[in-house]
Amino acid sequence: MVQKSDEAPRRRGRPRSFDPAEVLGAASERFRTRGYAGTSLDDLVDATGLQRPSLYAAFGDKRAIYLATLDRTIERAGKGFDRLIAAGLPLRDSLQAMFRTVIDGYLTGETGPSGCIMVSTSAASAVDDAEIRERLAAFLKMEDDKIEQLLTAHGDPKAHAHARLATATIHSLSVRARAGASLEDLDALAAECVELIAG
Amino acid sequence: MVQKSDEAPRRRGRPRSFDPAEVLGAASERFRTRGYAGTSLDDLVDATGLQRPSLYAAFGDKRAIYLATLDRTIERAGKGFDRLIAAGLPLRDSLQAMFRTVIDGYLTGETGPSGCIMVSTSAASAVDDAEIRERLAAFLKMEDDKIEQLLTAHGDPKAHAHARLATATIHSLSVRARAGASLEDLDALAAECVELIAG
Repeated sequence: MVQKSDEAPRRRGRPRSFDPAEVLGAASERFRTRGYAGTSLDDLVDATGLQRPSLYAAFGDKRAIYLATLDRTIERAGKGFDRLIAAGLPLRDSLQAMFRTVIDGYLTGETGPSGCIMVSTSAASAVDDAEIRERLAAFLKMEDDKIEQLLTAHGDPKAHAHARLATATIHSLSVRARAGASLEDLDALAAECVELIAG
Repeated sequence: MVQKSDEAPRRRGRPRSFDPAEVLGAASERFRTRGYAGTSLDDLVDATGLQRPSLYAAFGDKRAIYLATLDRTIERAGKGFDRLIAAGLPLRDSLQAMFRTVIDGYLTGETGPSGCIMVSTSAASAVDDAEIRERLAAFLKMEDDKIEQLLTAHGDPKAHAHARLATATIHSLSVRARAGASLEDLDALAAECVELIAG
């Protein structure tokens, strides 16, 4: 199924070329909507527009695709925090920008507000799956560490504890978004956290 | 399948009597471990010791059993908060007792620390399932309201905002427990929240 060489002759039935990053993004959105166990291979075919053999050749089975979407999320979220830290905004502005990005993202979704794929889907499969659990733990550690780094750069003497409270607020925003909370309610919770840390 | 009357004659093949509350508790534990989509009917047979026809007669299909476990969780957690409020402890002791109960519960599970069935499994299915989403929203509202009631009884002028931060901390404790966080880490996060509210 896999093309062994770039020089393999073009032939009928050969899958059209596609952008792996775009396909992974589409798969990630479907997993974010329905969770790992709730997403079928047919869902992924529907979401990505690729047939099963092409998906399998490019990424492996459903579990491999899911793990790849989690790795993608950890990397992208980490880079987002790095950009925020590099921007060097005042503390309050940094925190407000962080929560703005988080909440706006959490309110998007294929069929409704879908929060965070890690917090709200990988956690559901983490108890019995060590590889998913390790990725969830890595994501939480990344969040804690990056926010602590941001707060330390601003001389917050309680950077460690405040970072964990900010992360806790982010986790709750994901759960609340999926429960149908309003933008106003999510903003109010974020504002209270900003006030506690930067007030 | 269902016995229409208590006076129906006992006959061969009639399911043995069982305690519906106990069966629902066992089903709830399996759902808490594997999530709604990740739990099969065979899992429920294994967890409860009942065969499919008995489960179906008593509770309905898998979805009906799951919704019943969520209703059970909302009711039990609500009663737990009511007992805490009725105990009339000093504010700090109340919050410490609340987090002690939450963390100890979150570290239990069939195969590992499993957190909260609502926050960490129902959220995964909430986007595309209105009935699950409504129950998750009801649970979050119950948590917010009960903790606000507790704080208001202690004259906390920021009871509304503090309650939502305490709830956020509870949500994060569930995610972190499922990610394999240590008791020490969970206790540290809870202690920071107590300090912010009662310090």
